[in-house]
Amino acid sequence: MREVAIVGAKTTEFGELWEKSLRDIVVEAGVGAIEDAGISGEDIDMMYVGNMSGGKFIEQEHLGALIADYSGLAKGLNVPSTRVEAACASGGLALRQAIQAVASGYSNVAIAAGAEKMTDIDGSGVTDALAAAADREWEGIQGATFPGIYAMIAKLHMAQYGTTSEQLAAVAVKNHENGMNNPIAQFKSKLTIEQVLKSIMVSDPLHILDCSPVSDGAAAVIVVPADEAHKYTDTPIYIKASAQASDTIALHDRRDITTLDASVAAGKRAYEMAGLTPKDINFVEVHDCFTIAEICAIEDLGFFEKGKGGPASLAGETALNAKISVNPSGGLKSTGHPVGATGVKQAVEAVHQLRGEAGKRQVNGAKYGMTHNVGGSGATAVVHIFSNER
Amino acid sequence: MREVAIVGAKTTEFGELWEKSLRDIVVEAGVGAIEDAGISGEDIDMMYVGNMSGGKFIEQEHLGALIADYSGLAKGLNVPSTRVEAACASGGLALRQAIQAVASGYSNVAIAAGAEKMTDIDGSGVTDALAAAADREWEGIQGATFPGIYAMIAKLHMAQYGTTSEQLAAVAVKNHENGMNNPIAQFKSKLTIEQVLKSIMVSDPLHILDCSPVSDGAAAVIVVPADEAHKYTDTPIYIKASAQASDTIALHDRRDITTLDASVAAGKRAYEMAGLTPKDINFVEVHDCFTIAEICAIEDLGFFEKGKGGPASLAGETALNAKISVNPSGGLKSTGHPVGATGVKQAVEAVHQLRGEAGKRQVNGAKYGMTHNVGGSGATAVVHIFSNER
Repeated sequence: MREVAIVGAKTTEFGELWEKSLRDIVVEAGVGAIEDAGISGEDIDMMYVGNMSGGKFIEQEHLGALIADYSGLAKGLNVPSTRVEAACASGGLALRQAIQAVASGYSNVAIAAGAEKMTDIDGSGVTDALAAAADREWEGIQGATFPGIYAMIAKLHMAQYGTTSEQLAAVAVKNHENGMNNPIAQFKSKLTIEQVLKSIMVSDPLHILDCSPVSDGAAAVIVVPADEAHKYTDTPIYIKASAQASDTIALHDRRDITTLDASVAAGKRAYEMAGLTPKDINFVEVHDCFTIAEICAIEDLGFFEKGKGGPASLAGETALNAKISVNPSGGLKSTGHPVGATGVKQAVEAVHQLRGEAGKRQVNGAKYGMTHNVGGSGATAVVHIFSNER
Repeated sequence: MREVAIVGAKTTEFGELWEKSLRDIVVEAGVGAIEDAGISGEDIDMMYVGNMSGGKFIEQEHLGALIADYSGLAKGLNVPSTRVEAACASGGLALRQAIQAVASGYSNVAIAAGAEKMTDIDGSGVTDALAAAADREWEGIQGATFPGIYAMIAKLHMAQYGTTSEQLAAVAVKNHENGMNNPIAQFKSKLTIEQVLKSIMVSDPLHILDCSPVSDGAAAVIVVPADEAHKYTDTPIYIKASAQASDTIALHDRRDITTLDASVAAGKRAYEMAGLTPKDINFVEVHDCFTIAEICAIEDLGFFEKGKGGPASLAGETALNAKISVNPSGGLKSTGHPVGATGVKQAVEAVHQLRGEAGKRQVNGAKYGMTHNVGGSGATAVVHIFSNER
């Protein structure tokens, strides 16, 4: 297996990008990553795009070819381009396919992009499209939407471990604190625990400020063989692990809904592949689609004991340059969550952190960073570990 | 790059499977492939599923995890599972990702499945869902649907090369002839040129019997390293080439709409990878979504000169055991076209042919077989070459 490195990375601004289409933003991110790598588009020999639901959001499937076309790599060059989908984990899996393509020798310069344009349909349409990530026959048809599904996880987490609404709110407050220093963030506003607790209840115990927003955005990275990375850049970021796991798609079939077994399994596989433990990781971008999801994630990935994620969050142990820097980018909560883009955006943040380019949100002396991208309520989890040392 | 082989293969019956859901048929195909390989489900360490539009056809995305779950490989085993989409080429790309996963060393036993359940919504819904494979902003919104798009290709092919309606009809007649001997075929009926020409016109010059049908179905293959293939079977089928190419998604941007440049490029890459020429290929499963598509394909893949595909088809040169056996399975026209399943079903047919298990539709002495799977009007093409000799 060839080792693999990232030599270019870029995200668009995340937010309600009314004036731009999906094609605009994914080309913007792709061209940005290409420029960051100092290559030309013609150097690319394989493309992957993570996208959850172009069919429902913009009435467009076949996004691999569409994006190859609109980035000028289809006609004449005929660059292979493939869409990958696993709901909100689509971006992480696009990166993983690009890694495998390069590791296998099928590609020497691959681009992995993630993109979603969610604001072209109304809110109920978005809720319905997102519900297609859960089990339609056992959950969606019964009226279960994602705030409701994660609220059930939160309720049981509270009952089993004493997790409180203040602890949940602390996650949102910390992520906004980090996101204020991220130029691409959808919400750059400071938040207080009181504001979160006073915001309208979406699904008890989750207030609206416990939820990530509906967003447009795109991100892209350039993946090459590690042996050739220094041809492109002085600061390649090496892939130390790429791991993925599945779990039941419906919540009711789980062993214990407060633990996402797919996160646990993907995390263990990633640590094993990299030969590392949670103690070695300097920062982690976790999938905080709701505040409770961040608490589950930092427990499931081994950074805190089960049930201790809430108190640790309230105590500031997950803040920038505290015990473990969790979501230095601002996470899904503050930067926004264009679902197919999120997994690639996490990788872009890892690249910026490990290059030391993260400005006011820089994790000091970062050597190992992890990303954790989840589909649905945890039926898919994908975990990557990155390092600036080979 | 590790060499790769197929050791198990199965398709469900194709047709209007009213009594079965997508989960039923994909599990049926998967279990069939597992049994054919003589392995247990627990041996599988990676899953891919090709599916075009679960979101539009059955309101369900996140099909990788869903299928891992319903096949018993999610809970406890946490087998990674990823959906791949490129419209009607989704199945071929699922196979390609499984090949790359095994070639890279990320997987030792991968399953590639393809599945689509198209009959749960009405005909106009199907047409709309399929139109999402074309350029929505330049084609779909203008009312262009796939029969219309391929009719334009046929019209120009007729004008440039003198291709006739009889020649188009001969493709359908030959494919039904083969499909009559395929137990999984949706249409096992004999057809005459006169019947095709007298059938209702869908989009001039394409009659309804020039069109592949709306279908349900699933298919699966088991992919392992070639070095280990004899552990599983005495008749492994080796992957000699896996190649993919993109072209503009909209027809109006093409160099020449009678040539699918993505097919040409994917074919050339496949021949080069395998060290073979069209003369070496004993049979080819091409993407005959419409009869004109088969004529373009056999030209674009180098079996006939440009413009000679029509006369060759009418002269019987593409019949079973003639000059080149084209679509011995019966193709999309006779076996049906559950869009995400087709690319994997083509691979299953290649396996059966190369094992000498194809019964009355057996290609005599088959040593090299090719599959050709197209997305949209040719924005994606994926070509594989298989052999029973390493």
